Amino acid sequence: MGTTKWTQLWLDYHEVYKGEGSWKTVLTGFSDESPIVSNALLEFKRGMEKLTGEQVNGSDNSENALTLEITKNDAIPAEGYHISGSDKGIVVEASDERGVLYGVFAILRQIACGKRAIEVSESASPSNPLRMMNHWDNMDGSIERGYSGQSFFFENDEIIIDDRTRDYARFMGSIGINGVVINNVNVKSAASYLITDRYFDKVAKLSEIFNEYGVKLFLSLNFASPIEIGGLDSCDPLDKKVISWWENKVKEVYDRLPLLGGFLVKADSEGRPGPFTYGRTQADGANMLGDVLKPYGGIVIWRCFVYNCTQDWRDTKTDRARAGYDYFKPQDGAYNDNVVLQIKNGPMDFQIREPVSPLLGGLQHTNQMLEVQIAQEYTGHQIDLCYLIPLFKEVLDFHTHCASEKDTVADVVSGRTMGNKLAGMAAVINTGNDFNWTGNDLAAANTYGFGRLSFDTDLSSEEIAREWIRLTFNLPKEKEDILCNMLLHSREIYEKYSSPLGIGWMVTPNDHYGPSVDGYEYSRWGTYHRADHLGIGVDRTDKGTGYAQQYYKENAEMYNDPQKCPEELLLFFHHIPYTWKLKTGKSLIQHIYDSHFEGEEQARGLASDWDKLKDNIPEEQFDRVKHRFDLQLANAREWRDQVNSYFFRKSGIADEKGRTIY
Amino acid sequence: MGTTKWTQLWLDYHEVYKGEGSWKTVLTGFSDESPIVSNALLEFKRGMEKLTGEQVNGSDNSENALTLEITKNDAIPAEGYHISGSDKGIVVEASDERGVLYGVFAILRQIACGKRAIEVSESASPSNPLRMMNHWDNMDGSIERGYSGQSFFFENDEIIIDDRTRDYARFMGSIGINGVVINNVNVKSAASYLITDRYFDKVAKLSEIFNEYGVKLFLSLNFASPIEIGGLDSCDPLDKKVISWWENKVKEVYDRLPLLGGFLVKADSEGRPGPFTYGRTQADGANMLGDVLKPYGGIVIWRCFVYNCTQDWRDTKTDRARAGYDYFKPQDGAYNDNVVLQIKNGPMDFQIREPVSPLLGGLQHTNQMLEVQIAQEYTGHQIDLCYLIPLFKEVLDFHTHCASEKDTVADVVSGRTMGNKLAGMAAVINTGNDFNWTGNDLAAANTYGFGRLSFDTDLSSEEIAREWIRLTFNLPKEKEDILCNMLLHSREIYEKYSSPLGIGWMVTPNDHYGPSVDGYEYSRWGTYHRADHLGIGVDRTDKGTGYAQQYYKENAEMYNDPQKCPEELLLFFHHIPYTWKLKTGKSLIQHIYDSHFEGEEQARGLASDWDKLKDNIPEEQFDRVKHRFDLQLANAREWRDQVNSYFFRKSGIADEKGRTIY
Repeated sequence: MGTTKWTQLWLDYHEVYKGEGSWKTVLTGFSDESPIVSNALLEFKRGMEKLTGEQVNGSDNSENALTLEITKNDAIPAEGYHISGSDKGIVVEASDERGVLYGVFAILRQIACGKRAIEVSESASPSNPLRMMNHWDNMDGSIERGYSGQSFFFENDEIIIDDRTRDYARFMGSIGINGVVINNVNVKSAASYLITDRYFDKVAKLSEIFNEYGVKLFLSLNFASPIEIGGLDSCDPLDKKVISWWENKVKEVYDRLPLLGGFLVKADSEGRPGPFTYGRTQADGANMLGDVLKPYGGIVIWRCFVYNCTQDWRDTKTDRARAGYDYFKPQDGAYNDNVVLQIKNGPMDFQIREPVSPLLGGLQHTNQMLEVQIAQEYTGHQIDLCYLIPLFKEVLDFHTHCASEKDTVADVVSGRTMGNKLAGMAAVINTGNDFNWTGNDLAAANTYGFGRLSFDTDLSSEEIAREWIRLTFNLPKEKEDILCNMLLHSREIYEKYSSPLGIGWMVTPNDHYGPSVDGYEYSRWGTYHRADHLGIGVDRTDKGTGYAQQYYKENAEMYNDPQKCPEELLLFFHHIPYTWKLKTGKSLIQHIYDSHFEGEEQARGLASDWDKLKDNIPEEQFDRVKHRFDLQLANAREWRDQVNSYFFRKSGIADEKGRTIY
Repeated sequence: MGTTKWTQLWLDYHEVYKGEGSWKTVLTGFSDESPIVSNALLEFKRGMEKLTGEQVNGSDNSENALTLEITKNDAIPAEGYHISGSDKGIVVEASDERGVLYGVFAILRQIACGKRAIEVSESASPSNPLRMMNHWDNMDGSIERGYSGQSFFFENDEIIIDDRTRDYARFMGSIGINGVVINNVNVKSAASYLITDRYFDKVAKLSEIFNEYGVKLFLSLNFASPIEIGGLDSCDPLDKKVISWWENKVKEVYDRLPLLGGFLVKADSEGRPGPFTYGRTQADGANMLGDVLKPYGGIVIWRCFVYNCTQDWRDTKTDRARAGYDYFKPQDGAYNDNVVLQIKNGPMDFQIREPVSPLLGGLQHTNQMLEVQIAQEYTGHQIDLCYLIPLFKEVLDFHTHCASEKDTVADVVSGRTMGNKLAGMAAVINTGNDFNWTGNDLAAANTYGFGRLSFDTDLSSEEIAREWIRLTFNLPKEKEDILCNMLLHSREIYEKYSSPLGIGWMVTPNDHYGPSVDGYEYSRWGTYHRADHLGIGVDRTDKGTGYAQQYYKENAEMYNDPQKCPEELLLFFHHIPYTWKLKTGKSLIQHIYDSHFEGEEQARGLASDWDKLKDNIPEEQFDRVKHRFDLQLANAREWRDQVNSYFFRKSGIADEKGRTIY
């Protein structure tokens, strides 16, 4: 592991060229006494010295020194920046300190990607007001759905603050993240006490470190706090005693944690307490907290992941996919303006392929933000390579038809559609205290990528991938192309060897790695494929569960008709015979066989592509990733053979190409 | 839970009649200074006072007092007894102290079952030399496959000795158990140190308490002890350093634990260390320990549960069922005379229906004992009612054809076939520190039943059930018939609603409660049903894995032919089309549907039969069991519907009776 205890991820710059000269810095309208500005200058110094080998010295007065000029310009949008290079140096203009920080990181990124100082040029401001990371870290140090070691925030019910904390904040600042929820949405045990004196000092310290890189700290909240830590007998959001308890509690919290952004709440979900217990709506619960937080400028982020998780598999009327819309749509418009609903990208749960949640844009008068998961819960546990930015791009580009223009998910969650300010994107993060932060070194592309994409949803998957590669590795162009190509195809490859055409699940129960075709078929989780000897898929049309009707007309009609439904989602919306002819002319069953053989073969291609980079990647890092590919190949083979065998045994239809199926 | 912390199980006698008079006791050839004899007298006093309300007083000299006369008679076989009542009292003759103890318990049993003192009469001696219980208790207090609470032997890596210990020993003595292994066969962590100074004093104390009820204490051994606690770099059984280490260790052990019976060893199984690691045979391992134990009269019980637990499901040549015979048969005759092989009843793992292991009797020159499991790992977790004595009887009555006479399993494991002394039966026990010892009160019928059956393999399932009912409850005859009937049919009912015709498995992985038809189908455990759209079952004939050929000719021919194979084992030995006609005239698929509907219906019958006993069972106890039946019904329904749906979806063949299948 060398001498350091963790890597510097994409901030471990490599020398790109010898510099044009030394640097001095000039501030106009900003003060280097501000921690954010001061950190921006520090990052510039650290970065430029590594990138160009030149000295950066604020007090350099030599005639030849280039100037980094940081200037206040109130015409620049909040958190935005304008950077421009010339033969005298580089000017950063911004209207606020975050803009300065982001502008400096943008300079470093451009230079790392090969630009000379004189060529630096960009005007940018964030697509989304909120750009957040959600940690599912528990205070015992474990991480729910974590595949990168233990928490670096918590251990044995204590908060950890060390050099790693600051590095983490730097990483977040460098990719434009402005909010972080440090604790798991499932708030239990010690985590319920994060809003008590037991932890205030350390949480405050964390919030200060974050703040110095432009990041607001948020806490996940236990909705049952009035009972669990307050000693009340209720947490009914309309109960005056409960409201009064929250008023006192939040006053105390903001006295001690003035930098707190607000609360994230998972209520009435998978066994968590919530307003439904008291016959109240989700809006009653969220608004009560919103009212209480209002005086302090705090916000409530309320998750929409509410469904019946004790379904009877025999029940084909109930449809988990419907639940979010059914529960939240009726109160559209009733939510406080400091409440924002956080909606998962799909109606199920972060499968490799799902339709976009009909709540996104379906809510027309409610603040909303998009939740995605870069922790690879269902997408390979950071063992299998799965660059998720293409998936997120598809979601963002989806036309909801909620308006005649500005109707994409990107429009909706940025606030462009409704003109609202409380909007954005959040990711369940994939980090832990592993040496490389993300288990698989290549999984950091998702960490980096989510930050960059949430800052600028117009960036392409490839642009983001190339930025990350250039910042992280030191590869000649042809090797960069190989790695970029690996990333860009990895999601499609994972999809090919796992569950077919949008049906999802088929994973090992609980663990969610590796195949178990019937693993969730006879369960209480609402997760069924309904395969029999003739066909497979869930009828969610107007003749089935009616889920397709939750979309606006254009989409509803598209999804309702198996001929118009995008084939990659065919089994999500329709029960289809194995003999059904796809647009390729292949039968459904042959498609299942072919895609699984292809996916496994292409996974082997990924592994052999990685081998081509051996000479250009530090040995330890190369070997770490290579070991992951070995595991991925075993996984891909298991998926291929179990899925193919399952459907061959069930349908009795042979593979046209006569390949081995068991 | 009342005022006591645990029940007295079948020793909580009820008054059967007012006695004929008070009792005095006379010893001839035995001394009441012997703890066993003294306990026998104590049990007689305690029992008779509760059963008849009469005083039992050793020094009673009144003319009318009846006499319990205990007399040494060397003509009685070891551990046997002769009891006979007259108008003067009852005489117990025995050649040893265990015989006295067992004779006294036999008197109490007969009186509890309604006999007058004058009617008491029995000559008995144990069918099996070894009659053992195996605890799978871990030293952290957990019990592997335990469904009755935590261990009452261990907690937090310490040994518990309290009143419960003595009661446990009494229960064991009362049913003729003469050996108990207190710790799990998977010996890890602190349990490896049971043979060190850290625990000697308490183990010695336990062994004394056991001994006072005729029970020898045994320990499960970690075969890797020379490495784990000895600091050697090997546990190769042929390595002189290793042998020397064991010699010293065993000397130390017997210095400190003179009452120790010996060791139980699970080697080379499911990740446990063993001789295979060093290229040695199982015999090499067992004999090394046998040699070392010989000077102390200790024995080695060596488990035969050795198989490849990392099988590839695609591999249809390897057959877990073959493994025991393949591994152990070649060394038949090579085992020391103080080594006994402990063989599970079936070749797989305690399924609700398996053929008898071909090792039983297949070994012709090796000490062997039968292992069964009364912990209901695969048979309902002591939630579902499953009286297992009928299953054990089938195993004992099975003709192995290893000899022209005395060829049943009962003959083989009793030593009758080969004339050997080291032989017998062992059960993985179903107890824990629950108030009622066995989770489900009715599961104690298996605890009691195993003891009685291992003492006298000629007892019928019904005789044992009635004894247990009369000792445990206080029911009028018609209610006793109901309960007896429930017990006697419960295994058949469980079999009907779970996996069909001997195929086994189909349980939730790891947990082993409830259905998951494909749960073990694509796994590494060698546990497959190979169902496709046309049929189901594993071909273990001479054209398949050849497992059937491990039996003697008569059985091999029977199992090899689907027409001759007992239908309850059809799918264990053959891959059979769903359309195959069974002897009932039903197709295989219709049998699957019918038996599952029937099984669920009959489970409801069990629950409603229990309700009929409401007025005759103490309320707390009645409710405890009733709650279990509620859970059993949910389980039976889940089994019924998942199995039927699975096969309907796979075969496409409808139920002839048009019942609901999902």
